[in-house]
Amino acid sequence: MAAERLVVVGGDAAGMAAASQARRLRKPDELEIIAFERGHFTSYSACGIPYWVGGVVDGPDALIARSPEEHRARDIDLRLRTEVTELDLDRCRVRTRQLDDGGRESWTGFDKLVLATGARPRRPALPGIDAPGVHGVQTLDDGRALLDTLEATEGRRAVVVGAGYIGVEMAEALIRRGYEVTVLEQSEQPMSTLDPDMGALVHTAMCGLGIETVRGAAVTAVLTDAEGRARAVTTEDAEYPADVIVLGMGVQPETTLAAAAGLPLGESGGLLTDLAMRVRGQDAIWAGGDCVEVLDLVSGHTRHIALGTHANKHGQVIGSNVGGGYATFPGVVGTAVSKVCDLEIARTGLLERHARAAGLRFVTVTIESTNQAGYYPGARPMHVKMLAEHRTGRLLGVQIVGHEGAGKRVDIAAVALTAGMTVEQMTTLDLGYAPPFSPVWDPVLVAARKATAAIRAAGV
Amino acid sequence: MAAERLVVVGGDAAGMAAASQARRLRKPDELEIIAFERGHFTSYSACGIPYWVGGVVDGPDALIARSPEEHRARDIDLRLRTEVTELDLDRCRVRTRQLDDGGRESWTGFDKLVLATGARPRRPALPGIDAPGVHGVQTLDDGRALLDTLEATEGRRAVVVGAGYIGVEMAEALIRRGYEVTVLEQSEQPMSTLDPDMGALVHTAMCGLGIETVRGAAVTAVLTDAEGRARAVTTEDAEYPADVIVLGMGVQPETTLAAAAGLPLGESGGLLTDLAMRVRGQDAIWAGGDCVEVLDLVSGHTRHIALGTHANKHGQVIGSNVGGGYATFPGVVGTAVSKVCDLEIARTGLLERHARAAGLRFVTVTIESTNQAGYYPGARPMHVKMLAEHRTGRLLGVQIVGHEGAGKRVDIAAVALTAGMTVEQMTTLDLGYAPPFSPVWDPVLVAARKATAAIRAAGV
Repeated sequence: MAAERLVVVGGDAAGMAAASQARRLRKPDELEIIAFERGHFTSYSACGIPYWVGGVVDGPDALIARSPEEHRARDIDLRLRTEVTELDLDRCRVRTRQLDDGGRESWTGFDKLVLATGARPRRPALPGIDAPGVHGVQTLDDGRALLDTLEATEGRRAVVVGAGYIGVEMAEALIRRGYEVTVLEQSEQPMSTLDPDMGALVHTAMCGLGIETVRGAAVTAVLTDAEGRARAVTTEDAEYPADVIVLGMGVQPETTLAAAAGLPLGESGGLLTDLAMRVRGQDAIWAGGDCVEVLDLVSGHTRHIALGTHANKHGQVIGSNVGGGYATFPGVVGTAVSKVCDLEIARTGLLERHARAAGLRFVTVTIESTNQAGYYPGARPMHVKMLAEHRTGRLLGVQIVGHEGAGKRVDIAAVALTAGMTVEQMTTLDLGYAPPFSPVWDPVLVAARKATAAIRAAGV
Repeated sequence: MAAERLVVVGGDAAGMAAASQARRLRKPDELEIIAFERGHFTSYSACGIPYWVGGVVDGPDALIARSPEEHRARDIDLRLRTEVTELDLDRCRVRTRQLDDGGRESWTGFDKLVLATGARPRRPALPGIDAPGVHGVQTLDDGRALLDTLEATEGRRAVVVGAGYIGVEMAEALIRRGYEVTVLEQSEQPMSTLDPDMGALVHTAMCGLGIETVRGAAVTAVLTDAEGRARAVTTEDAEYPADVIVLGMGVQPETTLAAAAGLPLGESGGLLTDLAMRVRGQDAIWAGGDCVEVLDLVSGHTRHIALGTHANKHGQVIGSNVGGGYATFPGVVGTAVSKVCDLEIARTGLLERHARAAGLRFVTVTIESTNQAGYYPGARPMHVKMLAEHRTGRLLGVQIVGHEGAGKRVDIAAVALTAGMTVEQMTTLDLGYAPPFSPVWDPVLVAARKATAAIRAAGV
């Protein structure tokens, strides 16, 4: 019997990265590791689901970074289709229910606990929202269910509710499968993860791709047919027939268990941790991935950001600390990148509304340049918006919409934000230049120069 | 008559950016601006010449950012085909010779002087090196001369001497024009701007493209035919017939005038300036672009780096200071990016030999990952090498060889170097992640993690 037992709740990126890293540092006779996962899969790329649905990649196997068998081969006692239903922190145990075995329940004790319960798609409490034919796309099981619906359905009308990253990616996936796609977006522009002026560029591009995008469209209900299947979506003004409905309204932290156990949650419902990813106020409980809030290094507030790359980092940090090593996760700057067909969309740092909410005064500039030297074949327009703090000139955020090579340029700003650079410091950054890669002034530098001038012009 | 006169020597990026920025800040009655250029063109992209020669872009007009007429329309007195032959600093005047007008000479006085004399291709003192048919590719006039030779020559054998960026780009250009191309490289690998292990990847790729690359091949002479035209290149071991010969051995600062005037030069022959780009020890003389040495922020030494993006920044800084504003150029980290066909090649910071020369102890790691999520269609191998300082873990340099999306990733490291980050700090960078753009751990993060482990393993 091992000296200690680690229990992991949730078998995707954060949970299994934590388990794997802990196993690297501690032998089985030092640390027993039991991981519970209610689904059929472990350690997969949820971000790849839109590409699986769109037929761009094979699934689900290609999306799995490490299979249950691989985890078990590394001495992790992985229990699939087993849902944790209660955390009993006083007695250091969790209650589980076996989903495929008549719901058999039991208790498992732990010395150390990792919560990696992920996120769930937002599902507003509307009539019909739970009807068959309405799909989230958060897990591989969700992806499989959506594909089953698509295969079983003859109609070719799809409605995507919400035009954030997932909504836009799913719209593209469904277009690829030959669907007529309507995207209903509550806000004034799609990509509400961008400022409206930048979102308008995405809207134009989506129209060009044949995706009907309705703005200011708040969904009021899902209508169902005689068998109870979803058949249309209604807004205040209109009814949109739908053979399949995809929810792309974002996700919220799945912290039902944690809340019931009295663990500390932030404003958006995510678990609050310290920099070592230990749940605040707890000695032996860690949490990471889509179920936590993280420190936003730009605004100083905690935020909920569901993203596989963060989940992996959290798991790595947790596993190091659980295993007796030392690691911290300092926070995020809010970087995200996506694409719809060949239009690349990226942002990092604060949007205007975030900056205002954080009490910051700032200037904004927007420039249009090209992804390559203007004379190089294939040069395409690229728009960069930059926010900088009044007086100090500190970079606050960057948004980019453009074509090949535009999206990952946001990394320049992500590193600059992490380093606390001013836009004037950014004007002299030594970025890679050659005609196939960039104009002689990289678009990010052009924006930094304009922001520097705006800061100066704004005076005191 | 204006209150002051600015004289600019050299009409390409640095010189004309300085002139333009000074003009923005000072009206013609405050500052007269005279610019001398010995060639036919102004403000052009020398970096675009290989693509012009290769037929990828039209030239030379497309490569010109601002024409002589545009400069003149902005009240810059631009004098083409006029070579400055002497700087008389005691009397604050320059001697010029008109190249198309019988060599007429005259003196022009200045209150302020900008030296932007650029660089010239290295031409080792070998027999035959100045024969017709041997071409540098530093100026648009050089590009035009090379194209004239190509059009006048029936043979299809080209020899490129040197396999740095220009050599490799010219090899690709000549392959595109249907030439059999042999590249002779003195060092053990092509791309001596990379460490040999990374250069070997480029060598393999060049072979795959049908470019014959001979390593360890020091050129001993250019052989000429009865009319004195170049017909072959010899090394100690062999003779390589050539209908055209391109010098890609890099460039050296063109500072003959400055040296004759006693201005301070660094070890590689470039002018030395302060951070405002003012020539050291001078009150009224600035210098920028390919004729200066710049501070390497990683090693702390000055270096000569000929690159249009630096030249433009220098010009901007000089123009601001000449015009009564304030700007500085803090230095470089040594970023460069290039490609040969679809292989992208990038580096920033120090190579191993640079780090050793700077007296640094360091660890190196190399990783292989992919430019996109491994399961995403089109994912291709990407190699990242990272150098980090012993004990401190400070990032010292990154080299990348890969495919689409690989090259500009070097910008992540360029910003991190500028900010003085450690490789451990880099492991938590919030970089853009989505399957079409990156694996869930960006290759730069993978390298940073491995470098962090190497630093820890190296102990004290």
